[in-house]
Amino acid sequence: MVLDQINQPEDLKKLNMEQLEALTGEIRRFLIEKLSLTGGHLAPNLGVVELTLALHYYYQSPQDKIIFDVGHQSYVHKILTGRKENFDTLRKYKGLCGFVKRSESEHDVWEAGHSSTSLSAAMGFASARDLQKKSNKVVAVIGDGAMTGGMAFEAMNHIGHEGKNLVVILNDNEMSIAPNVGAMHNYLSKIRSDRHYLKAKDDVEYLLKKIPAIGGKVAKTVEKLKDSFKYLLVNGVLFEELGFQYMGPVDGHNLPQLLETLRQADNLEGPVLIHVLTTKGKGYSPAEADSHTWHGISPYKIESGQVMKSSGPPMYTEVFGNTLIELAEADSRIVAVTPAMPGGSGLLKFQARFPDRMIDVGIAEQHAATFCAGLAMEGMKPVYAVYSTFMQRAYDQIVHDIARQNLNVVFAIDRAGFVGPDGETHQGIYDMAFMRSIPNLTVMMPKDEQELRSMLYTALHYDDGPIAVRYPRINGRGVELAPMSLIPIGSWEVVRGGSDAAVLAVGPMVEVAEEAAHILAGHGISLRVVNARFIKPVDQAMLLSLAAERLPIITMEEGVRMGGFGSAVLEFYADHDIYGLAVKNLAIPDYFVEHGSIKEQRAEVGLTAESVAGQLAAFIQKKRQHA
Amino acid sequence: MVLDQINQPEDLKKLNMEQLEALTGEIRRFLIEKLSLTGGHLAPNLGVVELTLALHYYYQSPQDKIIFDVGHQSYVHKILTGRKENFDTLRKYKGLCGFVKRSESEHDVWEAGHSSTSLSAAMGFASARDLQKKSNKVVAVIGDGAMTGGMAFEAMNHIGHEGKNLVVILNDNEMSIAPNVGAMHNYLSKIRSDRHYLKAKDDVEYLLKKIPAIGGKVAKTVEKLKDSFKYLLVNGVLFEELGFQYMGPVDGHNLPQLLETLRQADNLEGPVLIHVLTTKGKGYSPAEADSHTWHGISPYKIESGQVMKSSGPPMYTEVFGNTLIELAEADSRIVAVTPAMPGGSGLLKFQARFPDRMIDVGIAEQHAATFCAGLAMEGMKPVYAVYSTFMQRAYDQIVHDIARQNLNVVFAIDRAGFVGPDGETHQGIYDMAFMRSIPNLTVMMPKDEQELRSMLYTALHYDDGPIAVRYPRINGRGVELAPMSLIPIGSWEVVRGGSDAAVLAVGPMVEVAEEAAHILAGHGISLRVVNARFIKPVDQAMLLSLAAERLPIITMEEGVRMGGFGSAVLEFYADHDIYGLAVKNLAIPDYFVEHGSIKEQRAEVGLTAESVAGQLAAFIQKKRQHA
Repeated sequence: MVLDQINQPEDLKKLNMEQLEALTGEIRRFLIEKLSLTGGHLAPNLGVVELTLALHYYYQSPQDKIIFDVGHQSYVHKILTGRKENFDTLRKYKGLCGFVKRSESEHDVWEAGHSSTSLSAAMGFASARDLQKKSNKVVAVIGDGAMTGGMAFEAMNHIGHEGKNLVVILNDNEMSIAPNVGAMHNYLSKIRSDRHYLKAKDDVEYLLKKIPAIGGKVAKTVEKLKDSFKYLLVNGVLFEELGFQYMGPVDGHNLPQLLETLRQADNLEGPVLIHVLTTKGKGYSPAEADSHTWHGISPYKIESGQVMKSSGPPMYTEVFGNTLIELAEADSRIVAVTPAMPGGSGLLKFQARFPDRMIDVGIAEQHAATFCAGLAMEGMKPVYAVYSTFMQRAYDQIVHDIARQNLNVVFAIDRAGFVGPDGETHQGIYDMAFMRSIPNLTVMMPKDEQELRSMLYTALHYDDGPIAVRYPRINGRGVELAPMSLIPIGSWEVVRGGSDAAVLAVGPMVEVAEEAAHILAGHGISLRVVNARFIKPVDQAMLLSLAAERLPIITMEEGVRMGGFGSAVLEFYADHDIYGLAVKNLAIPDYFVEHGSIKEQRAEVGLTAESVAGQLAAFIQKKRQHA
Repeated sequence: MVLDQINQPEDLKKLNMEQLEALTGEIRRFLIEKLSLTGGHLAPNLGVVELTLALHYYYQSPQDKIIFDVGHQSYVHKILTGRKENFDTLRKYKGLCGFVKRSESEHDVWEAGHSSTSLSAAMGFASARDLQKKSNKVVAVIGDGAMTGGMAFEAMNHIGHEGKNLVVILNDNEMSIAPNVGAMHNYLSKIRSDRHYLKAKDDVEYLLKKIPAIGGKVAKTVEKLKDSFKYLLVNGVLFEELGFQYMGPVDGHNLPQLLETLRQADNLEGPVLIHVLTTKGKGYSPAEADSHTWHGISPYKIESGQVMKSSGPPMYTEVFGNTLIELAEADSRIVAVTPAMPGGSGLLKFQARFPDRMIDVGIAEQHAATFCAGLAMEGMKPVYAVYSTFMQRAYDQIVHDIARQNLNVVFAIDRAGFVGPDGETHQGIYDMAFMRSIPNLTVMMPKDEQELRSMLYTALHYDDGPIAVRYPRINGRGVELAPMSLIPIGSWEVVRGGSDAAVLAVGPMVEVAEEAAHILAGHGISLRVVNARFIKPVDQAMLLSLAAERLPIITMEEGVRMGGFGSAVLEFYADHDIYGLAVKNLAIPDYFVEHGSIKEQRAEVGLTAESVAGQLAAFIQKKRQHA
């Protein structure tokens, strides 16, 4: 095996082309085998085998900086930089990260998880290099999907203007996670489909000779006409106009062509964009045939391509999608908006049922939010379906465009709370804290999937401003799905009686609190469990009544401690001049929690039933002594 | 006066061209006179007189939707829609808003203040129209500066793909607030400078005839060659490639040409971009000569163009700029980064002194943040100078790129707190709440301008992650500027002794608290005043010692109450199982505070010395009775 000889990028440079070609097959087999057991981002990595080899063959990492956008396509890079032994632990707790991770290797120079950051980072690396009079190369690898994110354009605009020496590899696989949308995509498709361009150059020179030499009035036009051949000869005129030198399209599975292109690019001054065409899932037919499904995949059987299905009740995501169809049948004003996540957000069935009322705007979280504001302004009922972590991109639009104008936009916030193996870049744990501080915004989280249904119903019948329903990346509790009903805004519910202390739990923490209550009951402690289904506004009547009882109060949430739901309870009592209550806030402490299973992440921060029971017992004991 | 006859857009339609032309002069005189007394965005509005007239003459507002990006260029629109009598109250408390404001007029269909939102909004309006089978027109007016904001590109990408019927007016005045930067700007300049294009069309047709009819091999090339003339004839190929039909450039001060272009655009199917060239400050020579200064201006003398200077100590902004020069002299790693605000952020002198180390990225707050991350990764010390309100655009980049990677980026957050006449779109009151919940981030605010200096010094000597210094849009306190010193991270200071209660005050609230203490001293109440200069981390030792004293505690901050600094204090005591303390949090309640003076805004929410003294007296009285 050639792969056995590769522990660092320098080992690559000893190989001849034949060995390199052999290596591509070995790496693909390695990925297909390893990921069949762990799951992971198979299709994107199968697509970049030759590209990653070419980059590490041509450049001198880590002196030269190879920056991967998003980073889920860095597995080949990890294999080539000494981490192939760790692949059994991929995306597992304390194991190999599914994204670029600086603590893993000196070759990991930039971490991401969210898209479209690589060009800004590359501009930072290149500017620092020039200010320090260094001479290393800087290369960013970005997908065509990520290229639609606004910040990528902001970076292009800056890079092109400054004329910095850096290389952008546009990894065009004709999709992001979903079928790509957007004018940029149409533009790239046009280039892809026109392979005529190489031959055209000769033809044009022939034609130019046919144009007679003309002076006088039209001379300037002739001159400009010659300039205009750039449009003919260089397909990437859009990038050229932005100050880049465009090269391509290049076959991303042709190693010699890739290496030759990198060599040519290196000889150019100023920013270069290399347009590389790759096929997602390349070399594994199930993944090539359905690269959406195989973008991020659970463990599978290699021969059949059969993917392991998780058992259990439907995920919250699926319940959301089905419920939205039900609601949209009854109200033609309902429109679903997604930033490139129709599948992940459970909207594929909705899209099939209401193609005109499901709008995928591409990777464009900011635009999606303000687009929803425009829709709402004209009487539609937009539902912005977005992952909590990606909604962070739209913070300003939520404040400035939606909440300030008090528009009836519904936020369907998926993957709220811990997200498991995607880890620290994707945790949905900030939104409660930041949404709570925005005026006019109502924020809910259900204790089970039936309550999710009723919350969507409530949100779509609410007409006094923006309202958010957040739900976790887990299976539902298996409760029976029933007709939906309105939930009074700001109302909580007691789900278990108890007299020694009251737990105010948010979302999935209700179940954890119930389990903790069960454990504590065995120790003679009677815990009341409240479903704090509104994070904002809080249930004032219940908080006042709890204060009157002088019960110790414990808040529980799978979100950041600082400024989160627990703080809302503290604020309420301070604002009502109620002092002396014993309130304990269980939440996520102030650090970044890494990848693992959701169960492991909860255990790490003390949000499992056992841990909570232990903490509560100590707390209640202390209060009893205190009283 | 023609202007006297204009109370609604329909009045315009009765005018002939001569009257319309006369009106442009009258409106300019009106603006110059009114704003000489109130101040305001003079130059942008003088630039759009003909454009706004043309829009209201051609379209049927409010059925047709005219959407202004940012909205500071909406004064002419306000004049034409029944608000000319209100201009004496412009930007004053309870007066006419300096931006588009829906509560003022049915013709105000979309509010903004931050840039680059208009295209997303327009896409929302147009999509709602089509879903509802209506037929109104949708027009967005966006400046060339705002066009560089990433969300504008996200919207273009979506609009171009969907082929929606809407018109984008690109108001190209060759600048945003600062000299424009970016590749898009270079591109537009190229178009501007080439007025040859109109004549070229005839020449090209002549040349085409010279090319002999050719079949066979090169036929396809000839065909493509003809296509490529688009590049010659249509200057806006960049926009064309994104799915827009480009028209222009059009002289934005030529009313007949503008009207004819609007008419032509209306006959086209799909999205149209009209490139309009305007001159900022048009018709008032001081503003034309220095349109940066005259972008947003204080009251001035019309004849001399002399601008009223506010008296008093230097603004915090100015102290920041001067101090950064001092620091940068001593450390070549320091780089200043601004998203199009070199003037507003006090960096013009820095730019002159260190042209290579002052990087204006254009209106691109997201890119600016991650660009800083890249600089920091390579050992530079980037200082991201940004207004609090605009930093909201970079929320995700702060979490995901900077804080998560724990990079040494310094945030210099100007206009933190109330901002006065810009009002609710620009208040810098959310950042404390949202930054506090982000791990690894340190947040400071000084009590005076000398402390600002030491905080910058401290920030640039801190090497354990991102650190923010926030400061208000007001004059300093007039303290003597002295050498800088390191402030221990997380340390507060007692600035006035007292034994009845302790006020923990942030930034300018320290002065307000001192005044309140002075008032209360006259009533026999002894108030301790603490300069809570670190919002995060809090001063644990001082908080524990205050708890031991069992003093009533009052927090004061010019930021949102929910999740703000006050909550940090509540959280600290809850996390340390300290109960029974009387803590009162004075902050901004949960609604959007509109424009006015900062003094008026503080009075509205009870953050003046008199109000605070009153609230504290009642609180302390109550605590005494309670104890």
